[in-house]
Amino acid sequence: MLRPDFAKCGGLVPVIAQEAQTGEVLMLAYMNEAAWDKTIETGEAHYYSRSRNTLWHKGGTSGHVQKVHTIRLDCDADTVLIQVTQMGGAACHTGRKSCFYREIDGDAVRECSPMVFDPKEVYGK
Amino acid sequence: MLRPDFAKCGGLVPVIAQEAQTGEVLMLAYMNEAAWDKTIETGEAHYYSRSRNTLWHKGGTSGHVQKVHTIRLDCDADTVLIQVTQMGGAACHTGRKSCFYREIDGDAVRECSPMVFDPKEVYGK
Repeated sequence: MLRPDFAKCGGLVPVIAQEAQTGEVLMLAYMNEAAWDKTIETGEAHYYSRSRNTLWHKGGTSGHVQKVHTIRLDCDADTVLIQVTQMGGAACHTGRKSCFYREIDGDAVRECSPMVFDPKEVYGK
Repeated sequence: MLRPDFAKCGGLVPVIAQEAQTGEVLMLAYMNEAAWDKTIETGEAHYYSRSRNTLWHKGGTSGHVQKVHTIRLDCDADTVLIQVTQMGGAACHTGRKSCFYREIDGDAVRECSPMVFDPKEVYGK
């Protein structure tokens, strides 16, 4: 079965999560081999948390998991694109739909992704 | 002006290029500060080529440049999303529209992005 070239990337490949229904890019995170295998096995996105150095089942605590529809590999097999349904409607820990919520507009910054939930209510204080 | 946190990422940030018109994800590449500045200055995507260790004006030779419509930063300021018009219709050096042209389908692989040009004709032998 086709797999990313983890060895080439020092064990971690970047993964783009795109909303299956709209094409909106939600976030970028990283997978190691264990996260890749868990994603394939469960149909829910698993990543490797570089800050916590651990396998990360996205939404595993809050219920805001990502149901995986398609998995694509790029020409160099060093980047993954997954198309997902984002449960809860927001991928970003700030409560916004997309992590890419800041758009550069000349010298200003424009917010370009809606607030879906209050992070205090989902993650506690 | 808002900028990626290059220092945090060892000087290079991943950049997702998405087709502005369709939302299709075309490729992932990397920018250093010089590539970022050139992109802002010219309105055409510039990357840092990790294989050639040099600034890379995407399509600078073939004419298949990427005209940048929007530039977005993620919540951690360590990933960039650009929405572009891909001149020539294909982002991938294989001649396919998207670098993400291989979709995993159980144990098989399905091609999921059209061939737009013959790379031999664009890049020579």
